[in-house]
Amino acid sequence: MESKLENNKVTMENTIKDYIQTNKNRFLDELFELLRISSVSADPNYKNEVFKTAELVKEKLIAAGADNVKICPTAGFPIVYGEKIIDAKLPTVLVYGHYDVQPADPIELWHSNPFEPIIKDEKIYARGACDDKGQMYMHVKAFEIMMQTNSLPCNIKFMIEGEEEIGSENLAVFVKQNKKKLAADIILISDTGIVANDTPSITVGLRGLSYIEVEVAGPNRDLHSGLYGGAVANPINILCEMIAKLKDEKNHITIPGFYDDVEILSEEERSEMAKVPFSLDEYKQALDLSEVHGEDGYSTNERNSIRPTLDINGIWGGYTGEGAKTVIPAKAYAKISMRLVPYQKSENITKLFKNYFESIAPLSVKVKVTLHHGGEPIVTPSNSFGYKAASKAMETTFGKKPIPVRSGGSIPIVAMFKSELGLDSVLMGFGLDSDAIHSPNEHFGLFNYFKGIETIPYFFKYYAESFAGK
Amino acid sequence: MESKLENNKVTMENTIKDYIQTNKNRFLDELFELLRISSVSADPNYKNEVFKTAELVKEKLIAAGADNVKICPTAGFPIVYGEKIIDAKLPTVLVYGHYDVQPADPIELWHSNPFEPIIKDEKIYARGACDDKGQMYMHVKAFEIMMQTNSLPCNIKFMIEGEEEIGSENLAVFVKQNKKKLAADIILISDTGIVANDTPSITVGLRGLSYIEVEVAGPNRDLHSGLYGGAVANPINILCEMIAKLKDEKNHITIPGFYDDVEILSEEERSEMAKVPFSLDEYKQALDLSEVHGEDGYSTNERNSIRPTLDINGIWGGYTGEGAKTVIPAKAYAKISMRLVPYQKSENITKLFKNYFESIAPLSVKVKVTLHHGGEPIVTPSNSFGYKAASKAMETTFGKKPIPVRSGGSIPIVAMFKSELGLDSVLMGFGLDSDAIHSPNEHFGLFNYFKGIETIPYFFKYYAESFAGK
Repeated sequence: MESKLENNKVTMENTIKDYIQTNKNRFLDELFELLRISSVSADPNYKNEVFKTAELVKEKLIAAGADNVKICPTAGFPIVYGEKIIDAKLPTVLVYGHYDVQPADPIELWHSNPFEPIIKDEKIYARGACDDKGQMYMHVKAFEIMMQTNSLPCNIKFMIEGEEEIGSENLAVFVKQNKKKLAADIILISDTGIVANDTPSITVGLRGLSYIEVEVAGPNRDLHSGLYGGAVANPINILCEMIAKLKDEKNHITIPGFYDDVEILSEEERSEMAKVPFSLDEYKQALDLSEVHGEDGYSTNERNSIRPTLDINGIWGGYTGEGAKTVIPAKAYAKISMRLVPYQKSENITKLFKNYFESIAPLSVKVKVTLHHGGEPIVTPSNSFGYKAASKAMETTFGKKPIPVRSGGSIPIVAMFKSELGLDSVLMGFGLDSDAIHSPNEHFGLFNYFKGIETIPYFFKYYAESFAGK
Repeated sequence: MESKLENNKVTMENTIKDYIQTNKNRFLDELFELLRISSVSADPNYKNEVFKTAELVKEKLIAAGADNVKICPTAGFPIVYGEKIIDAKLPTVLVYGHYDVQPADPIELWHSNPFEPIIKDEKIYARGACDDKGQMYMHVKAFEIMMQTNSLPCNIKFMIEGEEEIGSENLAVFVKQNKKKLAADIILISDTGIVANDTPSITVGLRGLSYIEVEVAGPNRDLHSGLYGGAVANPINILCEMIAKLKDEKNHITIPGFYDDVEILSEEERSEMAKVPFSLDEYKQALDLSEVHGEDGYSTNERNSIRPTLDINGIWGGYTGEGAKTVIPAKAYAKISMRLVPYQKSENITKLFKNYFESIAPLSVKVKVTLHHGGEPIVTPSNSFGYKAASKAMETTFGKKPIPVRSGGSIPIVAMFKSELGLDSVLMGFGLDSDAIHSPNEHFGLFNYFKGIETIPYFFKYYAESFAGK
């Protein structure tokens, strides 16, 4: 393969930077086009928008130079596939991303329309700006650069899905049915972050997830709290009491067997983790908290990475409008998610939760427990060709070697890729913790967007080189 | 005073029954007119409808024969006043009622439009059918009968307010400012119920109320539960834990001092109460419950009448839409009401609640406690002229002596009438526990509506007679 860039680092650096500089506005305009479509996969009201977004991703992949670009239908939202196979003997990188986004609620807390991106203080504000439209689109533009500068050093495959925010169930089916088509050497994903813009990092661990909805039903209709209060179970009180029983006073989760399979890190590993730059004061200040809160015996960074959690993500029941209504509602509900760590299994934890939650329900109510979705926790190797290529790429563009970190978030499909395709993933993301993904006013730094586009071609270069034995 | 009815029971019975029979459809049509206006006082969206309802009540009072009918403005919704003073030497009955209604939520559980009354199975279905438009309008029609048959034996004053469902704050101001105008001998209220259509009863006790809203605030914005889960306080988990701490495992309320002023009934009084016809099996069956639930050591009828309660009337926070959103919300909220019994004081209980709730909040959250409204518990005398007149009136029309009962509900203004006007109230209501007031599909039996209209003139007759020393 010929390449203008291959033998000259300075030339490569200049070429990439020049290309980005020349096309900066277009790169932003194209991302904005994507961000304007409200592809909220969780909400049936946005169904058409999700499909429209898939179409746009397809167009963009074709325009960037991909072959065989197809919208692959599933039982839910489609997967956009595309590829550029330059030589069967070269390694193949499978790029994964997602074009669906989280709901924008609570909408009233946004300072601008979540689906009309704006740039403020050098940041792009929109739902999906970071998670994951912005990060996914970095790959499309990095691919364009490599194509336009004739410097793509590996084969590349794109698999961009539309159901990441609702559990990727149909992606698992697609992967099982298309193992040959998806054959590759490594999976590259940008759906995570870095510690700070001057502290690059690569995620080597992700928590798993078990997301559950519960319903507590009492009387067969809403009742007047004066006439019935005190004499029948109030489903809200009971739900609160049951939720409170899920943790003890040390914030340990009380579900029997919950911690049985949790990986215990050595003192050495924990002290290695403790070296990651972190200021508890700044953390508290950024969130306006007097105190942090979590499991006894663990630091903040441990609590949100190597320890499992149980959080109520939503709760509702009774009268929630203005003013007062003296009602005992017939039902109360909660959405509950548990973040899992190696070697907990999502299915097992869901079962343990269900058994325990049902066992603590008083006879005066009926309880329903439904699984929304789950995913397995993972740890990715930090001594692989893929990790090393990512590390070198980031070191090249940030001027600083990235540190390996474990993230508290979940990308459930990473474990599935490993089990179905036998492939490791490299989690080279460019977001920041402060990007407010899943929150109002999600944003993505212009620095981060363009730094991602700049870094990705180096990943391909170093990955190809490591394979070539250079 | 001359009266066709005074000296002849049979004639009076026939006259009332004939009048009702002749005007049955009109009496229903007029009530329907009232029910069609959605006078939800708690919700600012219905402001105009509440004012419109006051206008209609005024028209109806004038049509029934009242003098000096006026819409008396307050800082909130107005009070409709009207009177018929026939002789200053005769006793005066002040009739109280309210024309506002509870919100109709959850609207999707109604089988018919809450503001388009229908008759089904001999019952009127509509928001306010029983509470209190239907019961209030019985008085207007009973007054019309007495006027049309020239049989009104006392002076009568009407005071119909529009803020009962939101705490009657402006009524208290109005009463203070109009003591002379409201001078009377007794207050007559139909805003309670009877045990069953074949078991008349009169309410002699009402619980007080302290209605509070709480906000638990954690981080300054919604957070991703993967990145922050386990490391910061989740306001929903904390709110649930705090709510759970408000009761112990025996369902006693744990707020220090909460029970200090609670009236302790003697064994004799409790065994008297236990004689009221009641089937626990039927109660559970009617509500589709496997078990009742309440404070240890008390029967169902005691739990909902002589014992105080703490119920969550509404709770909300985080993502409550379809599907899953992995969010730690910035805030979570609950509406909490406590029903009070003699001799608890609403203001004191609110203070105790606030102090305790704030004291159990961990440092990792901020807590806000706001009072919605309150009212004092009361016990009315069952040996007064008023009670005896009501008892005799019900005995006349039901053919059975009514039993005195304590109700779990609250009509906070009853205590206020006593303290401001020095007047006792007679709580002669005609609703049933099963009328679903404050719930979807509220209804009021045709039997009950017309039985009320039929009974009220007898109350006036016997009350006048007791004053005349007959």
